Amino acid sequence: MQEDYLKSIISENAKNMRRSAIRDLLKMATRPEIISFGGGFPDITAFPVDELRTVIQEVLDENAIQALQYGETLGVKKLREILAQRYRDQGIDVTYENFIITTSSQQAIDMVTQLFINPGDTIVCGLPSYLGALQAFYAHRANPVGIPKDEELHTVVNALVAAGKKPKFIYAIPDFQNPSGVTMNIEQRQNVLDVASKFDLLVLEDSPYREIRFSGEPMPQIYSMDKEGRTLLLGTFSKTFLPGFRLGWIMAPVKIIERLEIVKQSADLCAPVFNQFIVARFIEKGYFDKNVERIKINYRNKRDNMIAAFEKYMPEGVTWTNPEGGLFLFVTLPEGYDTSELFRIAINEDVAFVIGEAFHCDGSGKNTLRINFSYMEETRAEEGVRRLANAIRKMMQDKKAKGQ
Amino acid sequence: MQEDYLKSIISENAKNMRRSAIRDLLKMATRPEIISFGGGFPDITAFPVDELRTVIQEVLDENAIQALQYGETLGVKKLREILAQRYRDQGIDVTYENFIITTSSQQAIDMVTQLFINPGDTIVCGLPSYLGALQAFYAHRANPVGIPKDEELHTVVNALVAAGKKPKFIYAIPDFQNPSGVTMNIEQRQNVLDVASKFDLLVLEDSPYREIRFSGEPMPQIYSMDKEGRTLLLGTFSKTFLPGFRLGWIMAPVKIIERLEIVKQSADLCAPVFNQFIVARFIEKGYFDKNVERIKINYRNKRDNMIAAFEKYMPEGVTWTNPEGGLFLFVTLPEGYDTSELFRIAINEDVAFVIGEAFHCDGSGKNTLRINFSYMEETRAEEGVRRLANAIRKMMQDKKAKGQ
Repeated sequence: MQEDYLKSIISENAKNMRRSAIRDLLKMATRPEIISFGGGFPDITAFPVDELRTVIQEVLDENAIQALQYGETLGVKKLREILAQRYRDQGIDVTYENFIITTSSQQAIDMVTQLFINPGDTIVCGLPSYLGALQAFYAHRANPVGIPKDEELHTVVNALVAAGKKPKFIYAIPDFQNPSGVTMNIEQRQNVLDVASKFDLLVLEDSPYREIRFSGEPMPQIYSMDKEGRTLLLGTFSKTFLPGFRLGWIMAPVKIIERLEIVKQSADLCAPVFNQFIVARFIEKGYFDKNVERIKINYRNKRDNMIAAFEKYMPEGVTWTNPEGGLFLFVTLPEGYDTSELFRIAINEDVAFVIGEAFHCDGSGKNTLRINFSYMEETRAEEGVRRLANAIRKMMQDKKAKGQ
Repeated sequence: MQEDYLKSIISENAKNMRRSAIRDLLKMATRPEIISFGGGFPDITAFPVDELRTVIQEVLDENAIQALQYGETLGVKKLREILAQRYRDQGIDVTYENFIITTSSQQAIDMVTQLFINPGDTIVCGLPSYLGALQAFYAHRANPVGIPKDEELHTVVNALVAAGKKPKFIYAIPDFQNPSGVTMNIEQRQNVLDVASKFDLLVLEDSPYREIRFSGEPMPQIYSMDKEGRTLLLGTFSKTFLPGFRLGWIMAPVKIIERLEIVKQSADLCAPVFNQFIVARFIEKGYFDKNVERIKINYRNKRDNMIAAFEKYMPEGVTWTNPEGGLFLFVTLPEGYDTSELFRIAINEDVAFVIGEAFHCDGSGKNTLRINFSYMEETRAEEGVRRLANAIRKMMQDKKAKGQ
């Protein structure tokens, strides 16, 4: 089969799909000398593998026949009950029927997009926003529209509605956003709901990092503030437990969960059953919460170390966010600099990051970049920041030398 | 959010999705007295759990950091290499680059459909055909056209092409088809390729049961007969290893694999990494092949037992297939009988099956039903067939009494 012919028969959706800039950049950054701040990898070097061993043995002793067989499309009931209980403990009125277990939070975004999006439909999101969500939106030919600052949300949505482009949903990552590291305050959360209510939109609250708050005060979830049942909340075990298990969930009104069940049947029948049994037991035994506490201390130290290195090494004109949780901080160079150009210089200096433009659905953000602080060990992280600062200085000097 | 409004904002694709008849019927058949031949469940009661324990311990000893972290979208390289080697051992010229690991074979079907199908596109499939594939086709608004007998494949495709409805691909399950249990002979396989070649179509060879042949001679895969690189082969670990691990694969020309990688990034980033490491090691240690041999003996005995029970109990006019492998046999009642009606009678007799109509994209097959023989223990299976035969007799007598 010829390449040209193949090109001619792929779907319109597939033609609109975009490769992950992160995954492609990471392929360039595989030399062992390179210090990469690129991936969104959690640090699992301190993960309690022995507790995992115990849990797996117990699952195989007590639940092998169910855990190794096909499972329900909605997920293992025990795990859904545990999740419901954890949200009830936070004052949210839900039962297991408000949950579907997904094969990662990425699948959750894809499923919600499949359920609601026709080609050309508008989705409102952040500038910047999570790259994997943008990928899923593009894969279904949605039209993501970014909101530069969220006080303008009403204006942008109003204009879209007036132009006959009423958004299907508002996509938000309220806690320690990926990539910016920024957390929405309570007024901003209320504003999302108010705008959604006024124009009758859904809210997709993506919440992968919420449990990993290591400073400041928790804000209520948008889901918990919503009195009208228009919010879907996405969660994941990738950051608090293990990404290699590929498990996430959607919490939503039951009538939406029922529809997502049908999407999931077609997508992969059910999430890995064995993995669900393991996570459920890991939580029940208290290992999960202990691990989250460990992660918070670890990442707080790493953030502090990272911020200290930035303060020590970065040239004037460079700014960065100081996140209260999560895995990322976001760096802004003076206007006019392009981090794609910086990336090439940085790779020569043996340091890598993700260009900020990848997170901007409108092509802006050329002078920004994302730094992951959760993965890299601290001494190496400091060295990486030193190299990055050198690369930035080189770029700045080049520009000056060219008289730009 | 009101139900009516919700209905109005779901996507056209979602509106076209159909609930799995199997999963819904199974929900009706949960009373413990009911003997269910409904699910496509493998028998895992004899699965070597101790070998699995050993393998998991070794993975955690030697590969924890990679196995618990995010993995490559294409899958764990080791597992792709093992698969390639297994196909090379069968004389098929492939490398690891011809493979992408999927989160189940269901996801593989969904990904291929996403990659090629625009709403309204035609797919050619069997009558009957696998329900999960039909679900994925409907979910992307494809138009599946069933071929009653495969000698007519050329005629049907020719007519479709003439009508401007050229199919994107031919979907076939050549070995022990689900639901019919029928295996294509070599002429039928060649015919699929000839028609595909003549009209420049892709072939989607779904091969979940191939390894489980317990009688007769293996036929070559369509993939191995294809000289033009137009075949994609789908495999799964759900029947030969464990369904609760949710792992499958696609073997295809590299230029198609590259495109599927982008689909997979958006779908769920990567298949469960931990599970991939476990399966790879389970195969390397020789446990996998040993397990397949055990399954073949088990399922051959169960098929023999099932066929004997059918011969013993079934009233005249009922026919059934006698599969050389796989998990299913297919039962046909005399014309004019409706197995939806039979299902209600059967449930009262405490026996369940899947109505054949669910597998027919044209609404035919009302007098057929599918029986799974892999799952049920043999004494209970015989009792189930006795009950089913009773239910059929009752329906026949009712019909006679009504003078129909």
